[in-house]
Amino acid sequence: MYACDIMSDVANKILLIVLDGASDRPVEGRTPLSEADKPNLDALAYGGINGIMDTVGPGIRPGSDTSHLAILGYDPYKYYTGRGPFEAAGVGIDVKGGDIAFRVNFATVENGVVIDRRAGRISDTDGLAKAINEEVKVPGIEVIFKRSTGHRGALVLRGRGLSAAISDTDPKKEGLPIKECHALDDTPEAKRTAEAVNSISRQVLSLLDGMPENLERKRQGLPPGNAILIRGAGEVPHIPPFQERYGLKGAVIAAAGLIIGIGKMCGLEHIPVGSMEVEASGSSARAKMKKALETLETHDFVLVNIKGADEAGHDGDFEKKKSFLEATDAAFKDVLKLKDVLVIVTVDHSTPVSIKDHSADPVPIMMHGPGIRIDDVASYNELVAYKGGLHRIRGMDVMPIALDLINRTKKFGA
Amino acid sequence: MYACDIMSDVANKILLIVLDGASDRPVEGRTPLSEADKPNLDALAYGGINGIMDTVGPGIRPGSDTSHLAILGYDPYKYYTGRGPFEAAGVGIDVKGGDIAFRVNFATVENGVVIDRRAGRISDTDGLAKAINEEVKVPGIEVIFKRSTGHRGALVLRGRGLSAAISDTDPKKEGLPIKECHALDDTPEAKRTAEAVNSISRQVLSLLDGMPENLERKRQGLPPGNAILIRGAGEVPHIPPFQERYGLKGAVIAAAGLIIGIGKMCGLEHIPVGSMEVEASGSSARAKMKKALETLETHDFVLVNIKGADEAGHDGDFEKKKSFLEATDAAFKDVLKLKDVLVIVTVDHSTPVSIKDHSADPVPIMMHGPGIRIDDVASYNELVAYKGGLHRIRGMDVMPIALDLINRTKKFGA
Repeated sequence: MYACDIMSDVANKILLIVLDGASDRPVEGRTPLSEADKPNLDALAYGGINGIMDTVGPGIRPGSDTSHLAILGYDPYKYYTGRGPFEAAGVGIDVKGGDIAFRVNFATVENGVVIDRRAGRISDTDGLAKAINEEVKVPGIEVIFKRSTGHRGALVLRGRGLSAAISDTDPKKEGLPIKECHALDDTPEAKRTAEAVNSISRQVLSLLDGMPENLERKRQGLPPGNAILIRGAGEVPHIPPFQERYGLKGAVIAAAGLIIGIGKMCGLEHIPVGSMEVEASGSSARAKMKKALETLETHDFVLVNIKGADEAGHDGDFEKKKSFLEATDAAFKDVLKLKDVLVIVTVDHSTPVSIKDHSADPVPIMMHGPGIRIDDVASYNELVAYKGGLHRIRGMDVMPIALDLINRTKKFGA
Repeated sequence: MYACDIMSDVANKILLIVLDGASDRPVEGRTPLSEADKPNLDALAYGGINGIMDTVGPGIRPGSDTSHLAILGYDPYKYYTGRGPFEAAGVGIDVKGGDIAFRVNFATVENGVVIDRRAGRISDTDGLAKAINEEVKVPGIEVIFKRSTGHRGALVLRGRGLSAAISDTDPKKEGLPIKECHALDDTPEAKRTAEAVNSISRQVLSLLDGMPENLERKRQGLPPGNAILIRGAGEVPHIPPFQERYGLKGAVIAAAGLIIGIGKMCGLEHIPVGSMEVEASGSSARAKMKKALETLETHDFVLVNIKGADEAGHDGDFEKKKSFLEATDAAFKDVLKLKDVLVIVTVDHSTPVSIKDHSADPVPIMMHGPGIRIDDVASYNELVAYKGGLHRIRGMDVMPIALDLINRTKKFGA
């Protein structure tokens, strides 16, 4: 009646694959997932249990950060402390619980006034960022700076006696001076952190203005990146490490900095798929999955994030999203053959092509492996997944259910 | 593949229709909704997504007040502060956050003793209520009184330094004097409010006893309505206005005072359907829906409450409930044609004909409009709705889901 191989009794490892943004909102009854030719994903759905999932909650439109936290079993309402910490983790700073992290813009200051909040959308900031990271000093506080995409960057302050209860320095519009950072409460920690931020703000200005990159920009008539605007202070959460929490040795395979950063914050080991160059260009789903299967030999849990569908959704390109999913499907061929692994295929949030942004439409989730109660769903897509045996669950339910299916849960009661 | 009309991409308005008490508990497998001939409601269900809903929570038997609060996204455990405030809102007093509101009975006092707690179920209380509202004075406190149905009324105290921590004056049985109201805590606010209530109690007695209505009742051998019993003190909640909370300009269309009152408390504009007379006699579902479609031209959100099924449920009359629903169905014909409106049809609570009162049986909920993931459910009724794509949600989920479907949610994370 049901297609299934003879399987060993129990899975003892978990392979959690997130098809970033793959879920959609139908246009004339169709979605990229419902239309894509994807025999391997459909075979997994056919031999698995399916459902829909609110990664954070019904009607809550999640980011990739909050949704991945939830899927990994870390309540985003507790552990998501703002954009700063997650931006910093995303650009590759090894943030630690208690760090104070900020989002930063490179900007142009002339005669004490911000004349361009994005420094002409400067993008070649390697040298400037390196200089800030190496030269800017605050006594008793470690200052870490790293560039991000375009004119953006991330700043981290590490040390005792710091607080995120401080204001931004971004004046929000041009023609005004950089704002003084001030404490938002009466604690000495907030006062000290505000003073540190003001000191960094001043040091950066005198450090960057004369740097060769900026002199060259001025020569070309471009606004120099001679200042930084600091905002979105957040304390890096103290996240209980994955291995302590679940007793599983975990790894993360992803190309997106944000996902790698979140994985590392949660105590997952980042496994690069190829060379730095391959990583930077976005390694293929096939390469990721190959690496994931290798990693399962040494680890109990592997999170794989596959990114392309989300981008196609943000572009509003139905065909591109569908084609990406079709191309990705081949990567699942070997997954079908796994015998002692609980395979979970889900999505972190919908990114409907009709709205070019994330939405709260529930995502499909599928679990496949020994001991699974196989249901009648025969296709992996968000339009039919609701008919499956998982019904409607939440992101925070995934790890408890998965741990139980590999018999790693503690009994509650006797 | 999926049955659906060609739709525009995104809805930008919400029409929320509550079929008050329409849901039921089956008798021999049948319910009024499952038996009613209602082609338009069924067509909406066929072209929409369906599910069941616990308006407050599984097994929680709601009133229309608590369930409407939840469906509007206001947690009843936070905002429902007792019968007094909602009774007062229901009789048309424009209550304000911080008001202290009470339920009141007209009663008969003779020689200082309550001899009839309902004054012979007096019903013609217009003059008595007007006199109380106009003549009773407490220094520094605004006293508002309005009659309700039968022997009932509502009292509101407005001013600074008041408290709901006070006792009732209702002796609960005949043959006892009206109780002194006393403070239930040590605050000066409670003491002051208790004194105000006692003063009102005494003033009413001396005011009403000689009024022509009561002299006439005595002449007829009827117990006069010469006193009021005051109970159920509650502070009117500070409800964040709908427009502030959701960024939507909202309206309520209803005949029931309680629903109009709750809508107004939440910041919805009350749109009358016809003349005072039409309103009083209960305007038809068709007239309400016509007005709702007009109102959608100037508002982003319209709540329509249609009352008749609840009454038939309270009467225990299966056929009457079924007939009412069949008659109501015609009102949904034009709703089917709406293109850029998210239409939600739900019920605030079951009112099973078998128990003649509200029950906690989940209610059906259906959403119809552009971008909806249409499911296989083809009838609007509580016996099949569980098979739909919404699965089982809660009242508090309705607004978040609806806001997301019209793209008005904030992203949580990045």
